[in-house]
Amino acid sequence: MKNEFVCGARNQITDVAGVRVGHKTIETDTVHTGVTVVIPTADDVFCNKPTAACYVLNGYGKSVGLVQIEELGTLESPIALTNTLSVGAVLDALAKRAVRTAQANGRVLHSVNSVVCECNDALISDICAFSVSEQDVSDAFEAASDTFEEGAVGAGRGMSCHGLKGGIGSASRLVTFDSTAYTVGVLLLSNHGTLSDLTVEGRPIGWEIAEGLPENDQGSVIVLLATDIPLTSRQLKRVIKRIPTALARAGSRIGHSSGEIFIGFSTANRVREDEPCFATVTRLSESKIDTVFRAASEATENALYKSMRCAEPCLDKHGKPVHSLSEFE
Amino acid sequence: MKNEFVCGARNQITDVAGVRVGHKTIETDTVHTGVTVVIPTADDVFCNKPTAACYVLNGYGKSVGLVQIEELGTLESPIALTNTLSVGAVLDALAKRAVRTAQANGRVLHSVNSVVCECNDALISDICAFSVSEQDVSDAFEAASDTFEEGAVGAGRGMSCHGLKGGIGSASRLVTFDSTAYTVGVLLLSNHGTLSDLTVEGRPIGWEIAEGLPENDQGSVIVLLATDIPLTSRQLKRVIKRIPTALARAGSRIGHSSGEIFIGFSTANRVREDEPCFATVTRLSESKIDTVFRAASEATENALYKSMRCAEPCLDKHGKPVHSLSEFE
Amino acid sequence: MKNEFVCGARNQITDVAGVRVGHKTIETDTVHTGVTVVIPTADDVFCNKPTAACYVLNGYGKSVGLVQIEELGTLESPIALTNTLSVGAVLDALAKRAVRTAQANGRVLHSVNSVVCECNDALISDICAFSVSEQDVSDAFEAASDTFEEGAVGAGRGMSCHGLKGGIGSASRLVTFDSTAYTVGVLLLSNHGTLSDLTVEGRPIGWEIAEGLPENDQGSVIVLLATDIPLTSRQLKRVIKRIPTALARAGSRIGHSSGEIFIGFSTANRVREDEPCFATVTRLSESKIDTVFRAASEATENALYKSMRCAEPCLDKHGKPVHSLSEFE
Amino acid sequence: MKNEFVCGARNQITDVAGVRVGHKTIETDTVHTGVTVVIPTADDVFCNKPTAACYVLNGYGKSVGLVQIEELGTLESPIALTNTLSVGAVLDALAKRAVRTAQANGRVLHSVNSVVCECNDALISDICAFSVSEQDVSDAFEAASDTFEEGAVGAGRGMSCHGLKGGIGSASRLVTFDSTAYTVGVLLLSNHGTLSDLTVEGRPIGWEIAEGLPENDQGSVIVLLATDIPLTSRQLKRVIKRIPTALARAGSRIGHSSGEIFIGFSTANRVREDEPCFATVTRLSESKIDTVFRAASEATENALYKSMRCAEPCLDKHGKPVHSLSEFE
Repeated sequence: MKNEFVCGARNQITDVAGVRVGHKTIETDTVHTGVTVVIPTADDVFCNKPTAACYVLNGYGKSVGLVQIEELGTLESPIALTNTLSVGAVLDALAKRAVRTAQANGRVLHSVNSVVCECNDALISDICAFSVSEQDVSDAFEAASDTFEEGAVGAGRGMSCHGLKGGIGSASRLVTFDSTAYTVGVLLLSNHGTLSDLTVEGRPIGWEIAEGLPENDQGSVIVLLATDIPLTSRQLKRVIKRIPTALARAGSRIGHSSGEIFIGFSTANRVREDEPCFATVTRLSESKIDTVFRAASEATENALYKSMRCAEPCLDKHGKPVHSLSEFE
Repeated sequence: MKNEFVCGARNQITDVAGVRVGHKTIETDTVHTGVTVVIPTADDVFCNKPTAACYVLNGYGKSVGLVQIEELGTLESPIALTNTLSVGAVLDALAKRAVRTAQANGRVLHSVNSVVCECNDALISDICAFSVSEQDVSDAFEAASDTFEEGAVGAGRGMSCHGLKGGIGSASRLVTFDSTAYTVGVLLLSNHGTLSDLTVEGRPIGWEIAEGLPENDQGSVIVLLATDIPLTSRQLKRVIKRIPTALARAGSRIGHSSGEIFIGFSTANRVREDEPCFATVTRLSESKIDTVFRAASEATENALYKSMRCAEPCLDKHGKPVHSLSEFE
Repeated sequence: MKNEFVCGARNQITDVAGVRVGHKTIETDTVHTGVTVVIPTADDVFCNKPTAACYVLNGYGKSVGLVQIEELGTLESPIALTNTLSVGAVLDALAKRAVRTAQANGRVLHSVNSVVCECNDALISDICAFSVSEQDVSDAFEAASDTFEEGAVGAGRGMSCHGLKGGIGSASRLVTFDSTAYTVGVLLLSNHGTLSDLTVEGRPIGWEIAEGLPENDQGSVIVLLATDIPLTSRQLKRVIKRIPTALARAGSRIGHSSGEIFIGFSTANRVREDEPCFATVTRLSESKIDTVFRAASEATENALYKSMRCAEPCLDKHGKPVHSLSEFE
Repeated sequence: MKNEFVCGARNQITDVAGVRVGHKTIETDTVHTGVTVVIPTADDVFCNKPTAACYVLNGYGKSVGLVQIEELGTLESPIALTNTLSVGAVLDALAKRAVRTAQANGRVLHSVNSVVCECNDALISDICAFSVSEQDVSDAFEAASDTFEEGAVGAGRGMSCHGLKGGIGSASRLVTFDSTAYTVGVLLLSNHGTLSDLTVEGRPIGWEIAEGLPENDQGSVIVLLATDIPLTSRQLKRVIKRIPTALARAGSRIGHSSGEIFIGFSTANRVREDEPCFATVTRLSESKIDTVFRAASEATENALYKSMRCAEPCLDKHGKPVHSLSEFE
């Protein structure tokens, strides 16, 4: 198993210029959850919207904001990740933040399409405590940076993946077009899969680890893809539709209860609020797009393993250990 | 213009047995907004889910919960309507209510797909006040009944439609299959359209009323359809895809910024949480479905006019009058 | 009922520069059918593909070529219209023509996405005779011109619409952006609707004409839209999703068995076979797109009436008269 | 790598009762192509339609008949596979056959949704010869049986896969619900993938075989899935959306020019032409559907390897060898 592409400087989604990531981890005796925010652009995302696309492979999930991305092909808000039952609180916090940011900049904002994605961490955390507050979202924004932790942090705090500890993972790959280097970055929240199916870099390690019968493929996985390659929303959708190839190589069968939701955005094609009557969009030649497909797939597979390797083992709500992949390698 | 179908007893969505509707209107000097909840079934909707479908004609909107309806073909929560910026707060309130209801019934709920739809009432109400609270959602549930007000109430309080006052409208139509009567009920939140385009029951009344140039087709419209006809989710989707024919007869061109989102559910085909390995679904013969298409379209057109006729005139945020259709008929 | 937009010079789809239309009408004692071809560009459409989109409102139809348009957002072949059972023969003829045209130009073509749409003319014509030949398709191409007949010609020969004679209709509308005039052209094949629902320019004429009970809404309607406005495939899809508003104003309820399929293309945004690594696409500002929505809707409604008014009355297969709308106005 | 499920008696799609498969291989000095037909039911498929679904992962393809399957959720014709440029001829042959079969049975057929899928065999065969005739389609039907050859036969004659010889492959898996055994059968036409990506049963054999740089991922793959499990069209769609996990485990990155189209049907849920006003559909509990997902994925992976192992090596059009996987194992 060798890489086809070179990693970016940090091997994180923040290798795409302007992208920042912040976590707030929430930790009590019974609560192990959090929020992760992905800020897509250095400037105000609402005023200068990246081209975007989303793809729902399995819609058994509660993510919000996808409908407008699909219609308009743009992203106008940061993307927050959290646990399933906190989507409403985080959505409310994002909307308030957008309105206040606009007010602070002398603009009036009456509408914003905030994006919140989720996985269910009820195995490890007391999800019914509804622990995520507006302050937690603010804290995650405050913490946002171009370097960030992976594993059991932020929204990833209580997630599990292929029967082991999951969470936040990220990776990036460089591609070259017309002698210019571009970056494909991925950040995912891993909470899916069955242990016995797990294959790590080609090794069917799950069968070796698993004791007893395989469990159901529960939970979900959210994958966010950022790039500075000029792509249209149609092209971005084609790119993120290839993300499941990475999940499948790692063993996923895309279980019934696994909400598999992918969002991609390009910081190179922007839509200004005050754009003129006609604007130009740059589009990679479709004949070159296979390279992007492959880089996205490779980055996703890497990010998945990182989400598992970086995550410390812990106990679930019933006191049963949730091991880390790092214990078996 | 005459009706093809007979109206139900109340000519409201609650003519479908089990459906109840509740409003909470929020009114201050500057805030004129609210929440409307549609409770789809007499028993616990989570434990015994109606078959459902959704259709997005124009995705320029912030409604939540559609992704899972599309995937699983079921509805597992009440549907709440509110203003654009209050979706997060209402979603949070619905999730908390679902968890607490389950707890009260001795069940544990870790996940629920709550559905919230919205239109933007910023023309009339100070939407940036974020005025809708968890208590308001509770109050709407408390108020739920099989009879309810239409017009400028609940989520409809601050809406405008075709340049006049809009809001909540509802209607129902009876259809007969195999000598049994069934009901198609509609409830909508009208906030779309241009005045000069308005056509009421075939009369192009908008041109007569409109002074000056036509305004942009802004805002949105949400249409909920309930029925006791046994339909599959695929069939329900076909039915709600015909709803725009009613909007078009009333003059809508389905404007760019008009989020047009439709949800349909059948109380006759339910999915039990504890269903056996195989369950049976009843399906209307596709050869009979035109009758349902026509009844849905007629009920929607009627509900639209009712939303406008029932709504009292008011002033917008700038003190300009927003007239009622009832003033011109 | 007055027009909002000015018509193009011919009030036909060929007002969009480069577009040509050709018919071959096939007429025997029992066969009344044909082929109509729409050639989208003056130069070779395969080598320099227009941006395109398709939208299926009701997929009860047999049109071919839509899958690739949806994926790649381009059109690479002329579009042919014919009767339901002749789609295979016409598709075969288009593929052979494309291969031979390429060979004649020194190119080798191994694959082409030919597009054929259809309605069912079995009420008037002996559709089981499989009468459309490769030569008929060639003849339609030979006849292609920027002026063409409407009504009961070409693929429209045996169609009926709202219980009257239907067929080919076309219209165009001019819009202005940045002081430049652009054209939206429509060509449709009308074969749908119920007589009693028919509304012509706001007059519910169907009820007046119809004797006895309304018939089922059978048949289909195909609408092709051409424009020289620079639009992306996403934007074109939004435009053609508004086409049903025109059908609805004319009375359609979008019947169960009515395949409603729409294709749009822009001659202003082209994809060259030999395009460089990056190409630019021009995109109309989304804030201006309502004008295109309205022009498309108005042109479609006009084209529909023209398809009916231009069509001569005839007898159906059972000797029963199929009247022309022109007899009642 | 071990199987989770037991194979059916033949390990072919025909293990699903009623399904038959027939090939016609067309072979001249320069032409190496053919037709494969899959007959879905023992009785007349038009009169008693299986529930069906389709899923387009990559729409860069020319398959026909998908639009109506998506709308109505049923299959009403056999499915034919052939080369890209012969789709029109085969579609025409299927339509004529359907009309004549109906006439022979005293019925009149004016419309039928014939389904033809394709891959491009131009690497090996002179595709521009348009060699497939109506007689060839008839011959394939005549040859239809519950046992059939795999590899370089019928539509698979000229296909290549992951740089080696591809073609027709099939497999089946047994699953048990409520103590009753059901069958999931798959038949595919493999013509996709890059050699260096090829992974066979977990072994990355492609890297070992490949000389020089990896080629582009060209061609396509069509996968047909049959089952006697009672599934709705929504459920069938969920099942076939998991087919790509098998392609990905074998190394596919779902290349740009690889049309990936999947069709599934259930012989257990049928729609009769003369069905009563209400019919019942049996639906597997969604909580059991993971088993079907996994069986479909395992059968697809097996069918893919069989398509490659059964295919004899040959020369391409330029005299270069196209090896068989069987030469390397």
